[in-house]
Amino acid sequence: MPKTTWDDPAQNASPDGEFVRDTTYIEDRFSAELVAKNAPQAMKNGAFSWPVEPGRYRLMAARACPWAHRTVITRRLLGLEDVISLGLAGPTHDRRSWVFDLDPNEEDPATGLHFLQDAYFNRFPNYPRGITVPAIVETASKKVVTNNFPTIPVDFIDEWAQYHREGAPDLYPAHLRAEIDKVTTEIYHEVNNGVYRCGFAGSQEAYDTAYDRLWKAMDWLEDRLSTRRFLMGEHITLADIYLFPTLVRFDPVYYSHFKCSRQRLTEMPNLWGYLKELFQVPGFGDTTDFTEIKQHYFITHQEINPTAIVPAGPDMSAIMEPHGRDHLPGSPFPEGTVLPGPVPTGEEVKHPESFQH
Amino acid sequence: MPKTTWDDPAQNASPDGEFVRDTTYIEDRFSAELVAKNAPQAMKNGAFSWPVEPGRYRLMAARACPWAHRTVITRRLLGLEDVISLGLAGPTHDRRSWVFDLDPNEEDPATGLHFLQDAYFNRFPNYPRGITVPAIVETASKKVVTNNFPTIPVDFIDEWAQYHREGAPDLYPAHLRAEIDKVTTEIYHEVNNGVYRCGFAGSQEAYDTAYDRLWKAMDWLEDRLSTRRFLMGEHITLADIYLFPTLVRFDPVYYSHFKCSRQRLTEMPNLWGYLKELFQVPGFGDTTDFTEIKQHYFITHQEINPTAIVPAGPDMSAIMEPHGRDHLPGSPFPEGTVLPGPVPTGEEVKHPESFQH
Repeated sequence: MPKTTWDDPAQNASPDGEFVRDTTYIEDRFSAELVAKNAPQAMKNGAFSWPVEPGRYRLMAARACPWAHRTVITRRLLGLEDVISLGLAGPTHDRRSWVFDLDPNEEDPATGLHFLQDAYFNRFPNYPRGITVPAIVETASKKVVTNNFPTIPVDFIDEWAQYHREGAPDLYPAHLRAEIDKVTTEIYHEVNNGVYRCGFAGSQEAYDTAYDRLWKAMDWLEDRLSTRRFLMGEHITLADIYLFPTLVRFDPVYYSHFKCSRQRLTEMPNLWGYLKELFQVPGFGDTTDFTEIKQHYFITHQEINPTAIVPAGPDMSAIMEPHGRDHLPGSPFPEGTVLPGPVPTGEEVKHPESFQH
Repeated sequence: MPKTTWDDPAQNASPDGEFVRDTTYIEDRFSAELVAKNAPQAMKNGAFSWPVEPGRYRLMAARACPWAHRTVITRRLLGLEDVISLGLAGPTHDRRSWVFDLDPNEEDPATGLHFLQDAYFNRFPNYPRGITVPAIVETASKKVVTNNFPTIPVDFIDEWAQYHREGAPDLYPAHLRAEIDKVTTEIYHEVNNGVYRCGFAGSQEAYDTAYDRLWKAMDWLEDRLSTRRFLMGEHITLADIYLFPTLVRFDPVYYSHFKCSRQRLTEMPNLWGYLKELFQVPGFGDTTDFTEIKQHYFITHQEINPTAIVPAGPDMSAIMEPHGRDHLPGSPFPEGTVLPGPVPTGEEVKHPESFQH
C-alpha cells in the first residue's frame, strides 16, 4: 500500500535489494573571508557561501543521529559552543522527520520551531529531499544554511578557526589530510553506511553481501588499531570523530537491530579499547545519550521492529573501565592542547547512565 | 485484521501485556508394566498409558525447538536411538505448524506425514490446541501419543529403562529428584519461558518487567555455577538437559531477537564455561543445528522480524574452545558411564558449523 499520510512511520528500509542512501544535500558553505552580517554570496557551483559570524547560526542536531553526533563532537572539541548554539531534536519521529519535542512547549527555544522541516521549507518552499540532521540554521530567518554533513565539521575547523578555544586541538592537520580523507572515505562507505546496508537490506542475499562487506572493514580497523593508538597514529583527528558515532552505537543498536552480529565490539580487543579511550575523552562520552540512541532506532524503524519495544540492554558500563591502550605511543591530544571544559549548562545529555555521572 | 487463512504466518506474540504459554497438552504416558502390542490403557486422570515397545513409536522433533531439543538429547544420552525412531520437521512453518519439508518428497519417511498436524487430527479429529513438538507418534496408526514435553524425558528415563544403553548415565538420580524438580521448575518459569516472555511482550512495560525477571534468574544461575560444575553438582542430570537448549540459543537468537540483551552469555564466565562443556559432550553439541535454530525464530516470527532476514552472526566457534571448568570437582558423567557413540546415520545435523566437524 502506498504511503499517503504524513504521520505514517518513517520508512527507511529498501523494499528489496541493497539500501542506497540519498546523498543530495544543501551544499552551502561558510567562509571566513566574507563580512559578518552580510547576505550569503553565490558560488560558482550554484550553492552559497555564508559569512562566519558568532551568534548568527544554530546547529540543529539530535543525540540519536550518528551524522549529527560528528558535528556535536567537533563543535565541542574546538570550543565553538559559545559562537554556534545547539538545538536538539528528540529521538523519534514520523515521516515529518525530526521534532523539537524535548523542549518546553515542544519548540526549539531559539527559533520556536516544532518541526525541523519548517526550516527547510523556509529556505526552499517545496524542498523535496530528506529532512536531516545535522543542519545549520540561520537563527533569525529560521532557514537552513546547509545540511551537508561532510562539510560542516571541515568548515568548523577551517573557516571558524578564529573562534576556536585557545589551545584547541588541530583535528585535521595539513600533513595528514590526504590520509584522513582516504581513511574516512573507506569508513564512510564500509562502516558508517555499512551498518545501514545490513539493517535496511531488502533481501537475504543483499544482507549476506552487506554483512561480509561490513566485517571485512571491521577486521581492517581492528588490525589498523593494533599498532596505532588512534586511526592516524598518536592523536585524535577528524577520522576518529567520524568513526566514533558508529562504534558507540554498535553494541546497543547495530549488533541486534541491524543484524551486524558476527561479534560484539567488546569481543574486538583493539576496537573496544579504542572506543573506551575515546568515550572517556571530553566531547565523546559526554555527548552520547544511549537512551535516545536506542529509542530512535527501535521506535522509528517499525519496518524492522514493529513492536517498537526498546531493549533495556546491553549493559555498557564497561566502557568506562581502563582502556588498556597505554602500550601504544600517543595520547588523545598533543601536549599543550586545552581540553573542553564542563558541558555547557543545558547541553548535558538528558538520560545519563550511572557511569556517565 | 483478523487472521483468516491457514497459511498466514504463525502468530506467537502477545497483542498486549505479558506472553502466556498455552500449557494444555495430551498427557498420555508410557508404562513398563503394560504388555507390548496391547492397546493403551485408560488412566484415572482421563489420559491413557501406552506399553513400552521398541519400534512402535517415533519421536517427532525439530532441531529448532528448545522443548524438542530436551527430548532429543535425553534419547541420545540414554541410548534409545534404536528403539524410538526420530522424525525431524523443518525449521519454518506457517499457521499449520511443523512440516516435514526437509525429507524427500516433503514426507516423514516412517509415517508419510507432511504436516505434523495430521498426526494430531488422527488422534483427535478436531484437536483445538497448539500443534507442538516434541510429540511421540505411534508409527503405524500415525496418531499422537503425547506431546507433554515435561513427561517425555522422565518416561524415557523411568519406563524405558530396560532399553537404555549398557552403562547409560542416571540422569535423574533418586536422591536428587526433589532438588532437580525444584531447580527445573524455577528454570522453566524464569529462563526457558523467561526469554519468550521478553520476546513476545506486548508492551514496553511488560518487556521491562520480563527483562528484569529474566536477568535475576540468569544471575542466580551464574552464581550457582560458580561453585558447581553442573546444576546439581558433579555430574550432568536432567536439570542440565533442561537448561542447555535455552543457553545454546541465547547468543544466536534470544539476545537480539527476544531483546534479552543485558549481556551475551560469552560475558557470563560461569554460564559460558558451563555451556561450552555441555556442548562438547556427545548428545548436546551434536544435536544442535544453529542454522535451523536461527531460521526458525527469525523467519517464523514475522510479527517481530518482518523482513524475515536471518542474521549471519554470531560467530559461535569459541563454544568449542577449552571450557576452563576443570577447577570444579566433577566430570560430565560418573566413572564407568558409557557415552553415546557416533550420531546414527541419517540423524546428523543438516547444517554443521565448521567447528562441529
